[in-house]
Amino acid sequence: MIKYPNGKVVKEKSPVSETSSKKKVSAKLHLSAMNRGMDLEEDINLSNEYYKEHDLCLITKRPTPINVVKVDYSKGAIITNAYFEKQSTTDYNGVYKGKYIDFEAKSTQIKTSFPLANITPHQIAHLKGVLRHKGIAFFIIEFVKNNEETYLLDASYIIEFYEKKERASIPYKDIVKYGHKIKRGYAPRLDYLKVIDEVYFNEK
Amino acid sequence: MIKYPNGKVVKEKSPVSETSSKKKVSAKLHLSAMNRGMDLEEDINLSNEYYKEHDLCLITKRPTPINVVKVDYSKGAIITNAYFEKQSTTDYNGVYKGKYIDFEAKSTQIKTSFPLANITPHQIAHLKGVLRHKGIAFFIIEFVKNNEETYLLDASYIIEFYEKKERASIPYKDIVKYGHKIKRGYAPRLDYLKVIDEVYFNEK
Repeated sequence: MIKYPNGKVVKEKSPVSETSSKKKVSAKLHLSAMNRGMDLEEDINLSNEYYKEHDLCLITKRPTPINVVKVDYSKGAIITNAYFEKQSTTDYNGVYKGKYIDFEAKSTQIKTSFPLANITPHQIAHLKGVLRHKGIAFFIIEFVKNNEETYLLDASYIIEFYEKKERASIPYKDIVKYGHKIKRGYAPRLDYLKVIDEVYFNEK
Repeated sequence: MIKYPNGKVVKEKSPVSETSSKKKVSAKLHLSAMNRGMDLEEDINLSNEYYKEHDLCLITKRPTPINVVKVDYSKGAIITNAYFEKQSTTDYNGVYKGKYIDFEAKSTQIKTSFPLANITPHQIAHLKGVLRHKGIAFFIIEFVKNNEETYLLDASYIIEFYEKKERASIPYKDIVKYGHKIKRGYAPRLDYLKVIDEVYFNEK
């Protein structure tokens, strides 16, 4: 979900420092625009905020790594030269029922498949590590043009697909089959925790 | 461990992208300088690198959050105006034996106590959340001038002390009593995983 290569500035927000009133306004604005191609990252951030406020789990977005080259201290630590670094891990991690949760969120405009091109080898290595250490690892994949259908897909499935190198993308129909559809709503926007419960904790 | 207020630039490094040869050279240089007041953050980062290479756990440093104001795309996405934000969570998190691990590392030059001043209310709230969700949460505290003695102290102890507001610092002798000393060595530099095993998993 890092957007820097395409010219959009990512304003890094610390999940706690923002006031929840701001978030609520944002949620209202968002509702009116629902189903018109929203931002997956924002959906997840707002869902995490909801989960945190309701004390259901604690999952946060990792800040985008930035390499700071130059800081101007004459004006109180203004960064005047820096560049974005690639996230070598995933975008989100946190804790639920004592377990470690780790995932990457990706959105695609393609209707028939999810391209693997924007998953890095580092991310695959990281997710393999999470699985070896018995953490819960998955992807959240949104098909924007299929009515914003969004699926949770266990990392093991993607890792296998990625390492086989037989195809450059995972067919949409396979994600529907092997993934778990995440319900969209008002709050939480994207209730992926319910899916985690069903898939990893055998609860309804 | 964020150093920006005192004029030092924090060069954010992604833990995976650095070559291990660089790390090894750095470890050698470090050894010769041992016990002369080293950098706790580097010690932990190198220990995490060691743990990762030996596949013992997967714990990473969260990047310092930076608020990007302006990016110059004429030279390939150079950030020309940005500022540091306060970390609203902690510096480190990850997975060990399926469990969520979360901690903050602090170093003090004071010999007789650890001042609570540089722990933020946000960090306390975050650590309380981690504990409620059954994660493992603690502080790593280094007493630079006490021969770099370094202790793991469960977050619950610090939270209680912090919220009592009776004292502005935790006495060194209490940290020795209620904390767990972390052994320093060559590799891993600071074997806090061994202490996690003993304290949270009842293993030797």
